[in-house]
Amino acid sequence: MEQVEKMRHTLSHVLAAAVQELYPTTIFGIGPAIENGFYYDIDFGGTKISDADLAKIEKKMRGIIARKCEMRAREASKEEALKWAKESRQKYKVELIEEMPSDEKITFYDMVVPGSEEVIFTDLCKGPHVENLGEIGAWKLERIAGAYWRGDEKREMLTRIYGLAFVTEEELAEYLAQQEEAKRRDHRKLGKELDLFCFSDLVGSGLPLFTPRGTILRDMLNELAQGYRVRCGYRKVCIPHIATVDLYKTSGHYQKFPELLQFVSQESGDELAVKPVSCPHHTQIFASAPRSYKELPVKYLETTMVYRDERKGELGGLSRVRAITQDDSHVFCTEDQVEGVFGELIESAKDLYKKVGMKLTLRLSFRDDGDGYIGDEKMWQKAQESIERMAKKFEMEYYVGVGEAAMYGPKMDFMATDALGREWQLATVQLDYAMPERFGLEYTDKDGSKKVPIMIHCALLGAIERFMSIFIEHTAGWFPMWCAPEMVRILTVNDKVEEYVREVEKVLQGVALEEPVKGNRVRYEIDRSDDSLGKKIKRATEMKIPVVLIIGEKDMAAREVSVRTREGEEKVKLDELKGWLEARAES
Amino acid sequence: MEQVEKMRHTLSHVLAAAVQELYPTTIFGIGPAIENGFYYDIDFGGTKISDADLAKIEKKMRGIIARKCEMRAREASKEEALKWAKESRQKYKVELIEEMPSDEKITFYDMVVPGSEEVIFTDLCKGPHVENLGEIGAWKLERIAGAYWRGDEKREMLTRIYGLAFVTEEELAEYLAQQEEAKRRDHRKLGKELDLFCFSDLVGSGLPLFTPRGTILRDMLNELAQGYRVRCGYRKVCIPHIATVDLYKTSGHYQKFPELLQFVSQESGDELAVKPVSCPHHTQIFASAPRSYKELPVKYLETTMVYRDERKGELGGLSRVRAITQDDSHVFCTEDQVEGVFGELIESAKDLYKKVGMKLTLRLSFRDDGDGYIGDEKMWQKAQESIERMAKKFEMEYYVGVGEAAMYGPKMDFMATDALGREWQLATVQLDYAMPERFGLEYTDKDGSKKVPIMIHCALLGAIERFMSIFIEHTAGWFPMWCAPEMVRILTVNDKVEEYVREVEKVLQGVALEEPVKGNRVRYEIDRSDDSLGKKIKRATEMKIPVVLIIGEKDMAAREVSVRTREGEEKVKLDELKGWLEARAES
Repeated sequence: MEQVEKMRHTLSHVLAAAVQELYPTTIFGIGPAIENGFYYDIDFGGTKISDADLAKIEKKMRGIIARKCEMRAREASKEEALKWAKESRQKYKVELIEEMPSDEKITFYDMVVPGSEEVIFTDLCKGPHVENLGEIGAWKLERIAGAYWRGDEKREMLTRIYGLAFVTEEELAEYLAQQEEAKRRDHRKLGKELDLFCFSDLVGSGLPLFTPRGTILRDMLNELAQGYRVRCGYRKVCIPHIATVDLYKTSGHYQKFPELLQFVSQESGDELAVKPVSCPHHTQIFASAPRSYKELPVKYLETTMVYRDERKGELGGLSRVRAITQDDSHVFCTEDQVEGVFGELIESAKDLYKKVGMKLTLRLSFRDDGDGYIGDEKMWQKAQESIERMAKKFEMEYYVGVGEAAMYGPKMDFMATDALGREWQLATVQLDYAMPERFGLEYTDKDGSKKVPIMIHCALLGAIERFMSIFIEHTAGWFPMWCAPEMVRILTVNDKVEEYVREVEKVLQGVALEEPVKGNRVRYEIDRSDDSLGKKIKRATEMKIPVVLIIGEKDMAAREVSVRTREGEEKVKLDELKGWLEARAES
Repeated sequence: MEQVEKMRHTLSHVLAAAVQELYPTTIFGIGPAIENGFYYDIDFGGTKISDADLAKIEKKMRGIIARKCEMRAREASKEEALKWAKESRQKYKVELIEEMPSDEKITFYDMVVPGSEEVIFTDLCKGPHVENLGEIGAWKLERIAGAYWRGDEKREMLTRIYGLAFVTEEELAEYLAQQEEAKRRDHRKLGKELDLFCFSDLVGSGLPLFTPRGTILRDMLNELAQGYRVRCGYRKVCIPHIATVDLYKTSGHYQKFPELLQFVSQESGDELAVKPVSCPHHTQIFASAPRSYKELPVKYLETTMVYRDERKGELGGLSRVRAITQDDSHVFCTEDQVEGVFGELIESAKDLYKKVGMKLTLRLSFRDDGDGYIGDEKMWQKAQESIERMAKKFEMEYYVGVGEAAMYGPKMDFMATDALGREWQLATVQLDYAMPERFGLEYTDKDGSKKVPIMIHCALLGAIERFMSIFIEHTAGWFPMWCAPEMVRILTVNDKVEEYVREVEKVLQGVALEEPVKGNRVRYEIDRSDDSLGKKIKRATEMKIPVVLIIGEKDMAAREVSVRTREGEEKVKLDELKGWLEARAES
């Protein structure tokens, strides 16, 4: 274990020691090290703990650390351990100890004041810990939350106190700054400020409504993700959002993940569900006509919603929603074509994430020994080997994630790192030997024999809502011009420039955009309000409009415009504006 | 009553008379005149009637008509009528007579052979009829169907015999030819032949899946319908397909049309439904921010699916489905803006239906005295007057359809006549004073006071699936180039022309399309198969490709292509091909 993790773990003991001293009747749950710090779940009885108490507890902790106590391990029998827990009225520890095998030695950690040998705190704990509290680096208590004992909502609600801990003060400061930045960029806050999406209690939790601006952002991101595949010969299809449960019995989702299905009541007696995935529908389009090897690969593309009954507590802005839009595609192909299809998709993913400015790493998501999978072992082995071979062939660095596979096959999952250094699993390409067989799909091969095609599932953005939540925070709402809901805003100083504004508009209407938004027009608005120029600029800046054109009488006289971007302000000649905008849109 | 209707009604008596003679123990239900002909519902006991029997019955009918019987009305008391019905063992007539008021005279019609005065058939009937069977024009028996007595599926299943009848043989022939043409154009047949959509038992009845070709047609029709509104400042929004039932309780759909709601089971305990309409969702986007009069009209546009639990027996191809895509739009505006918004939409509807070659007439759909409406009477009166005033202002010919209003307000329904002369209700513009109030929508007016906006609902295609079913039959699958899934197909005669084909492709890629598909590229495919040119042409014709370019060595030498369309074949110089295609795409 790394030193920082030991330090974090020890800090949870220091936290408990301080709490015990301040609130002698508290009962302790568990206190592990976590990413960036530590926590302890504590039962304060009736006492309510507030942020003000945190300061008091932190002060007490600093006092304990100053005494440079030693952390000493010792073993005890189950019997001795139980005696300790019962005598000290630690009912949660009693519960934990009772579940341990009776022939095993149980470890305790004592916090000992050097010299006096006084034990100021004892906890049931496997360790390891730092040897001396003097080794503890930079830390602070962070916040209070509620947590059910053992995560079970039927059990006691405990108070969880979180702390942050790093080796150096610099690291802690950096982390706090990053947190501050993440808060400033919170997509829920920006979503409201930039008028991108909203929620309504009447519509329901986890069901976002996209405003006109948010819909443009969605559509542009989707056009980017679909564009790569359209250029590779994928063709759009369209399916309804409901189906009979027989479809999911055939796919295996019904048996393996019954919780995915939300049933729809029908008078007509059909057993229907809103779709939790789109692949089974797409198999039925493939199956709608006899297929020849000459037609393969058949490539379907559709951005459509799926529905999941996410728990209310887990919903949050666009990060997790109950109506999830996926930029799905499904290919039906021969064994020989798998590599080519994967190659196109890997190149697309690489290019897309370069375009949005995120670094990609690759995880090969393989199965574990669980039973959440369909298809036989041989098939899985073949598919996993094939995935690994392709990762090598396309010279991708990768690591293997065991237990991360889809129900029907292994995946290539692309992990993207955003501007705040956070890693997200977004794009995915999946190899599926199982579902085509379950649906009885087939094609006629060269020799006239019937063969089962292989299916390749892919989403480049993943869930568009989740991608948007990340992208909004990644860009802090300063969207690149190609996907900005409003690319350009014109601010006029007074009525006298109206005729010149029309000339500027003509230039804007003539701008030729390139991929991914080729064929689109420049989206611009004109602020002709009576407000002062300063107020207009402030408003445009708050809305994070990428390009603001300010037009005053002097600009008109000089046949130029003042162009204001995030980087600064410059004068651009009207004759050069088209070129300037086209170059900017490309960047 | 018109003579032709009397004739049709009399024919149903002739049909019954013939059946009675051939099957003396049959029991008669009712036999009315209908559009294009007549029918009689008959209880044949255990006897099964087939198409072969129809010929026999028709022959017998012609014999009766040849006797030029007279149709003579006579009155009877309820008592006498019941006596007749019971003696002749006509239990359905007994049922009908028993329901009549006892003090009313009941009319019978006797079919009397002139001269002999023999009554060959008597029926309970209000008339009127032709006086003499000699007046009957052109007719034939058409088909057999099943029909529940009084339309009640818990009652007896009777045999319904349909007949066609017109004044002249020409009219009958014309009708039959039209029916034949409709059969040839049946969108279910063409949908399969042109590979536009399919159904799957696993997905479910009434849930079409659109293939790549069908999806292009859908998307192009939608682009046409949305384009008009985008150019009028409508902005796209995006909503999920589910919502809590509270949304529909607030809108009033839950109370007025509970059968519209299909509930979704959720573990989380929220009461959700798949959306039967989209307007309530859109109100919530409007409500997501404070609105000023300066922002109005707010115009939302979204093509999205709604779900209806249609009865299985009523489903048919794309004509009636359970997942219905609507090209919806919703405007929130002030009283002063209503006329302007209506004007834009009326112009759009006129232009769209001109573009697709259908004649429009206008129905003003007003409320009746039923209780399927929300909002008070004064509001309805105002809204209906407003609708009628606008129909006059925009110089539309119209008629009023009482009982055709929406739950929340009156409508302008545009009735389109297709190439087969059939009339369909498609585009609709609806005025709604009720829903904004129910959802508590408001905006701040000039004087700072809060006002409730007016809502205007519109769909130009209506349901896209239904529009497609009509459009496929209207065009017989010969889609205009702008919406054809494959606009152009290139047929090559041999490999020697490959280089020249690439030159032709360059021309195709350079074609600039105009609205409604501005920005799109020419969709073309190349048939490079080993098949003979004859076979390639046959295949392209079967797929109804609007423009087929045939490229042989001679064409290459002359730097031209042979262009084959539905109208014929011509040579077009390569230099002129771009212009030729652009002109063709416009037409």
